[in-house]
Amino acid sequence: MKRIDWNGLDEAGRAAALARPAQSRATELRDGVEAIVADVRRRGDGALRELTQRYDGIILDTLQVGDEEFAAAEARLTCELKTAIRDATDRIERFHRASAPVAVSVETAPGVRVERVLRPIRRVGLYVPAGGAPLPSTAIMLGVPAAIAGCRDVVLCTPVQADGRCDDAVLYAAKVTGVHRVFKLGGAQAIAAMAYGTDTVPRCDKLFGPGNAWVTEAKLQVAGDPAGAAIDMPAGPSEVLVIADEEADARFVAADLLSQAEHGPDSQVLLVSPSHALLERVGDEVERQRRALPRADIAAAALGESRLVHVRDLDQALDVSNRYAPEHLIVQTHDPRALLEGIESAGSVFLGPWTPESLGDYCSGSNHVLPTYGYARSYSGVSVASFQKQVTVQEASAEGLRHIGPCAATLAAAEQLDAHRRAVTLRLAAMDAIA
Amino acid sequence: MKRIDWNGLDEAGRAAALARPAQSRATELRDGVEAIVADVRRRGDGALRELTQRYDGIILDTLQVGDEEFAAAEARLTCELKTAIRDATDRIERFHRASAPVAVSVETAPGVRVERVLRPIRRVGLYVPAGGAPLPSTAIMLGVPAAIAGCRDVVLCTPVQADGRCDDAVLYAAKVTGVHRVFKLGGAQAIAAMAYGTDTVPRCDKLFGPGNAWVTEAKLQVAGDPAGAAIDMPAGPSEVLVIADEEADARFVAADLLSQAEHGPDSQVLLVSPSHALLERVGDEVERQRRALPRADIAAAALGESRLVHVRDLDQALDVSNRYAPEHLIVQTHDPRALLEGIESAGSVFLGPWTPESLGDYCSGSNHVLPTYGYARSYSGVSVASFQKQVTVQEASAEGLRHIGPCAATLAAAEQLDAHRRAVTLRLAAMDAIA
Ligand SMILES: [Zn+2]
Ligand SMILES: [Zn+2]
Repeated sequence: MKRIDWNGLDEAGRAAALARPAQSRATELRDGVEAIVADVRRRGDGALRELTQRYDGIILDTLQVGDEEFAAAEARLTCELKTAIRDATDRIERFHRASAPVAVSVETAPGVRVERVLRPIRRVGLYVPAGGAPLPSTAIMLGVPAAIAGCRDVVLCTPVQADGRCDDAVLYAAKVTGVHRVFKLGGAQAIAAMAYGTDTVPRCDKLFGPGNAWVTEAKLQVAGDPAGAAIDMPAGPSEVLVIADEEADARFVAADLLSQAEHGPDSQVLLVSPSHALLERVGDEVERQRRALPRADIAAAALGESRLVHVRDLDQALDVSNRYAPEHLIVQTHDPRALLEGIESAGSVFLGPWTPESLGDYCSGSNHVLPTYGYARSYSGVSVASFQKQVTVQEASAEGLRHIGPCAATLAAAEQLDAHRRAVTLRLAAMDAIA
Repeated sequence: MKRIDWNGLDEAGRAAALARPAQSRATELRDGVEAIVADVRRRGDGALRELTQRYDGIILDTLQVGDEEFAAAEARLTCELKTAIRDATDRIERFHRASAPVAVSVETAPGVRVERVLRPIRRVGLYVPAGGAPLPSTAIMLGVPAAIAGCRDVVLCTPVQADGRCDDAVLYAAKVTGVHRVFKLGGAQAIAAMAYGTDTVPRCDKLFGPGNAWVTEAKLQVAGDPAGAAIDMPAGPSEVLVIADEEADARFVAADLLSQAEHGPDSQVLLVSPSHALLERVGDEVERQRRALPRADIAAAALGESRLVHVRDLDQALDVSNRYAPEHLIVQTHDPRALLEGIESAGSVFLGPWTPESLGDYCSGSNHVLPTYGYARSYSGVSVASFQKQVTVQEASAEGLRHIGPCAATLAAAEQLDAHRRAVTLRLAAMDAIA
């Protein structure tokens, strides 16, 4: 792991130290995805079958997962895993329900009521990748808020496996969280199908979920087309920043860095500490623990780009963290909660020695679909609000219009919008005529 | 105005009847904006001065509006307009404060606390157009939620006028709502400056506000670049859909349709009614009122593309409206509130005869920066939440980890993420060693 002394760097050096790997939307990728999207729009289900045969090596009879397949998947799972999925779902549901937007009604002037009502996005499309390994946890993280939001039609796409089935745990998680339909589709073709619809796959209003470069590029393309679909947020490689002081347990910190590193060779891993001794200990401990991991090679690749950053004190550690705006921020210091106030930009925060990132990834209750790549400066993670629209409603009585109509008319006149002014004055005149 | 009988149309006819004008991101526009953005990134303030001279015909000494300019602007305004701006600001503040997100803290399991905390987006850029006429109301609609959110640095760009000044009312509105800095910049160059920063204009994390085709294209370009800035939402021409029954006052309905039509020749105007007689009356009334308007020609152009849609009943009117997903939805029926439950997709809703759209445009308290062009199916209007990030925080005690750690470990094992599993089990083992 690369050691960096923050106070030995000038501005350019600091920018370089926190730079993320360049994400080129390579022309090749862009064109390849464009071709797939166009093909799915033109030929629909036929294209989906052909692309699935080409990329997954599977000839699909039916694209949609049937009831008997759900039942068979459930029968194959261990009781332990099913219980874990249900328990995680319960806690995630509890937190998401508590943090869901609420309706609002305010009288802003006598006779003028302004409200905010909530409406589910009618049809949403969830993508659950299965590239390295299947991710039932992502099905939970997307299915739960969609259900709480009340979406009428929740569609999920996940790649088909070599045996022609979808992952058992993903199917069980989809069922438990109330997903309405699951399709055996992966990659850019799944995104295209949900964005534009085919005979079999319904057209969705908004798409959610992580994915590989093809999926990410396809999401960007359909989001840029008014005839396409909205998306949850732009994506980049997953990342963690740990702030730790000399009291932190190096084994715990190392384990957390490695959890991030095993996600993929492009994962970003940063440790920021005022303690040289801790940086040293963690460096050693990471190497020791890494060797025992099944994904030791992936972790090694990610760690090659990782950084151990020495700072003056915890205030400066916060500066570095806010500047980087990490997806995950772990704080293992003497008084972790004391730092919370100073945290400006992060997707999700983990306080104290007993809160590994794994808890948030799976079952503490928070969502794990979070802004990466610096987007935490301006985006939030997925929540119930991501699956809803907040519609404002206003209703004025005649009295209300008398109160605030003149204000509107004055502003309309200032903006030279005379029809706007008259829509008010004509009504006020009509009122006077009645009275 | 074009009369349409909804029940006489097949599916293709219905789709055509509700089609919006195609929004082509013409290559010319795209390339022109790309050149401006690249120029501003490369040459900074020099490019801004040159582009302002080229497009606005003004040679600027300083880009930023100074204190004495604010004072002079205020001095030139009438008391009536200043009062209207302050009153509108007060009501908008009341509603936005009441509907702002709140912090949440939940114990999801014994010893596991999950929270949502709110953090302002640090630096935001507001764009206030002045193409046709200056829009002080837009400065209020963006400045108020930015202030409530607590953004540290609120920057506003608005085009310079022929006299070298910015609009007096826009400056006053910016001051009243607490905007920190105003720059005399318009068009794609303003968006580029706020997205990437120059020596004078600070780099902003998120950009807000409406604009012409150049501004809209520039926003899309910077939002697609990870080094650029996030944006509030995609944009399209403004639009209204009115649902009215035979009891509606045709003069009021016509006045509302005309308020929308005067916004621009590409404004969308739809009236949906089960009453042939009302459609007839409104058609006549629109023509009568239109002739008296200063912007009669603009309105005529917009009305040329407008539609009077006859439907079977109010339920079908709701279907048409939900399918169209209008930015503004006005309901003038016998019992307007009875329809609210059935409204699925709309930016802002206006109930009853005494609630013209002008109220929401200016001073009822709701926001007028709303999703257009069908985006109301998946997007919400601007609110305090648009200026904040919702950060999740979790903290487990040793007891908490004992409770939910095994669940996380089981799921990590199912996903073949062994380092995730070990980050839990290593801690549980450490706990046992201490005990
Ligand atoms: Zn993880
Ligand atoms: Zn208007």
